[in-house]
Amino acid sequence: MGGRIRAEDKECPLSTAIEQVGEWWTLLILHDAFDGYTRFDQFQENLGISSSMLTSRLKALLADGLLERRPYQTNPVRHEYVLTDLGRSLRPVLVALAAWGNTRLAPEERSMILIDADTGNEVEPVVIDAKTGRRLDDSNAYVFAAGPAASTAMRNRYPDRMPLSTNR
Amino acid sequence: MGGRIRAEDKECPLSTAIEQVGEWWTLLILHDAFDGYTRFDQFQENLGISSSMLTSRLKALLADGLLERRPYQTNPVRHEYVLTDLGRSLRPVLVALAAWGNTRLAPEERSMILIDADTGNEVEPVVIDAKTGRRLDDSNAYVFAAGPAASTAMRNRYPDRMPLSTNR
Repeated sequence: MGGRIRAEDKECPLSTAIEQVGEWWTLLILHDAFDGYTRFDQFQENLGISSSMLTSRLKALLADGLLERRPYQTNPVRHEYVLTDLGRSLRPVLVALAAWGNTRLAPEERSMILIDADTGNEVEPVVIDAKTGRRLDDSNAYVFAAGPAASTAMRNRYPDRMPLSTNR
Repeated sequence: MGGRIRAEDKECPLSTAIEQVGEWWTLLILHDAFDGYTRFDQFQENLGISSSMLTSRLKALLADGLLERRPYQTNPVRHEYVLTDLGRSLRPVLVALAAWGNTRLAPEERSMILIDADTGNEVEPVVIDAKTGRRLDDSNAYVFAAGPAASTAMRNRYPDRMPLSTNR
């Protein structure tokens, strides 16, 4: 983290997303949250990290709006940490990342899988275009391009790839 | 990234994936590679990082098998860095992450988008199950579970979620 950031990074959705979720522990805490864990001591036991490290990671997740604090006990007041809508919207990213980890293993070698809760069948996550249903794996068919709000720096990065909507 | 790792982490596809790609610069270098950049000085100019930082990141990407070195010039020999099949297989993760960044912006506020190279139309990446075509956003319908190779620790994490294939 830190260091110099190129001009287009502040507007790049990948860079800003990575800035929020790119910390190792952050994604593991979110994984715990997706699995239903909500309390400080649960995260700490699962992750095996120091209180100060966990406190600082949770603070970042609260500040980024991915988790929110909710009292679950009074006298003394204790809080739990639950996913916000924004945090929940990261689930496809975690699913895609776990799927990538598993694709390198034969099915019988996998230790953690994503299943259909009703049938117990393992699912096979793929990323598609919602409009056409086509898979987005092919880096020649689907390319990053400057968007409507792109700066000059971003347009210079993608000179030949202007979306139609800005070509009017 | 150091620190204590819980027992099940070594077998968790999410943790192992994060270990390989969870470094901020790593994903930005891969983004450059997906956009067609291959040379040390291109990465350095795009990313604005020190030679030593970039050298160490590229070493990690080579060691993890995500990039490979290829000579592009002799006398003196110079190498470029190109994506391996394994590196290319990470593309859906980058696409999902960039899409997450963009979902928080109105279409006209987006600076970098993924487009269909033929039509120039912006695509809308979503993660689905390849077998059923259903979206995997719903964390109640699709849950993580212990896989066939799960350790006791992993099975303890998911006691009620055994895939059918291991319930014979």
